[in-house]
Amino acid sequence: MTSRHLAPLVLLLALAAPLGAAEAPKVDYPAGYRQWAHVRSMVIYSEKHPLFATFGGIHHLYANAEAMRAYTKGGTFPDGSVIVFDLLDTKDENGAWVPGERKFIGVMHKDRAKYKTTGGWGWEGFKGDSRTDRMVTDANAQCFSCHEKQKDNDFVFSGYRP
Amino acid sequence: MTSRHLAPLVLLLALAAPLGAAEAPKVDYPAGYRQWAHVRSMVIYSEKHPLFATFGGIHHLYANAEAMRAYTKGGTFPDGSVIVFDLLDTKDENGAWVPGERKFIGVMHKDRAKYKTTGGWGWEGFKGDSRTDRMVTDANAQCFSCHEKQKDNDFVFSGYRP
Repeated sequence: MTSRHLAPLVLLLALAAPLGAAEAPKVDYPAGYRQWAHVRSMVIYSEKHPLFATFGGIHHLYANAEAMRAYTKGGTFPDGSVIVFDLLDTKDENGAWVPGERKFIGVMHKDRAKYKTTGGWGWEGFKGDSRTDRMVTDANAQCFSCHEKQKDNDFVFSGYRP
Repeated sequence: MTSRHLAPLVLLLALAAPLGAAEAPKVDYPAGYRQWAHVRSMVIYSEKHPLFATFGGIHHLYANAEAMRAYTKGGTFPDGSVIVFDLLDTKDENGAWVPGERKFIGVMHKDRAKYKTTGGWGWEGFKGDSRTDRMVTDANAQCFSCHEKQKDNDFVFSGYRP
């Protein structure tokens, strides 16, 4: 969905919402992200890890061309940057962790005008392989509550692994 | 190195080698592969796994545009296809496997005219982050001895994970 198509939707949402509760526009599904550059990966496999309950499995980070400029050259992520956190279940097969079903994807979309209160980033989670079924009602608030700690790194946890 | 530059080198090698021992041309380092599409990943973490000694760590497979056509649409890999097996050491950090140093990359390059005796693929391994330091003297023979089992899948083990 382009921003041109989004504008009437935003107006509709603004009219429908109670006064004072206008939400930031939703982040779109990042179509084609599996062909984007692969930033890095990690496997959280044990309950010993503090993030196991939320992020257990193998995750891969992907970045579009705008985000890759900041990952590889440093500096602030430009508007239009999109980063995808792709979490898959894992199975232990004979001493190897192999990928299973997709649990969800998390998306960060940089747009400083749209997402002023959450570090200039919009946030979203899509369940499994769905492009429409969202994880939570207010991903911006939920994701930002943790990513906020990374303010000095433009709210991003991952670094590019060459 | 382009094939135009390679031709004199091949001639030189042919002249230098004993008769009957002419080798297939070497496969080039796959410059820029870290920006190619990411096919799939796996972590071989235990000696229980039969490939631990050779491939222990986290590996990622990357494919150029030609190879991605076959991965996503099926059929034989076209000439020009390049697949990279990127193997990194792993560290167990508090219940998570995180990537460490690069151990080596393995490369498959499809060129049916050049690599007639090894399934139409040329093979190579580059140590660590080096673009010149090759793993073995005859990667074609060594890699093919195992990949040969995958003849019905055009000698490729991996499948694309959407």
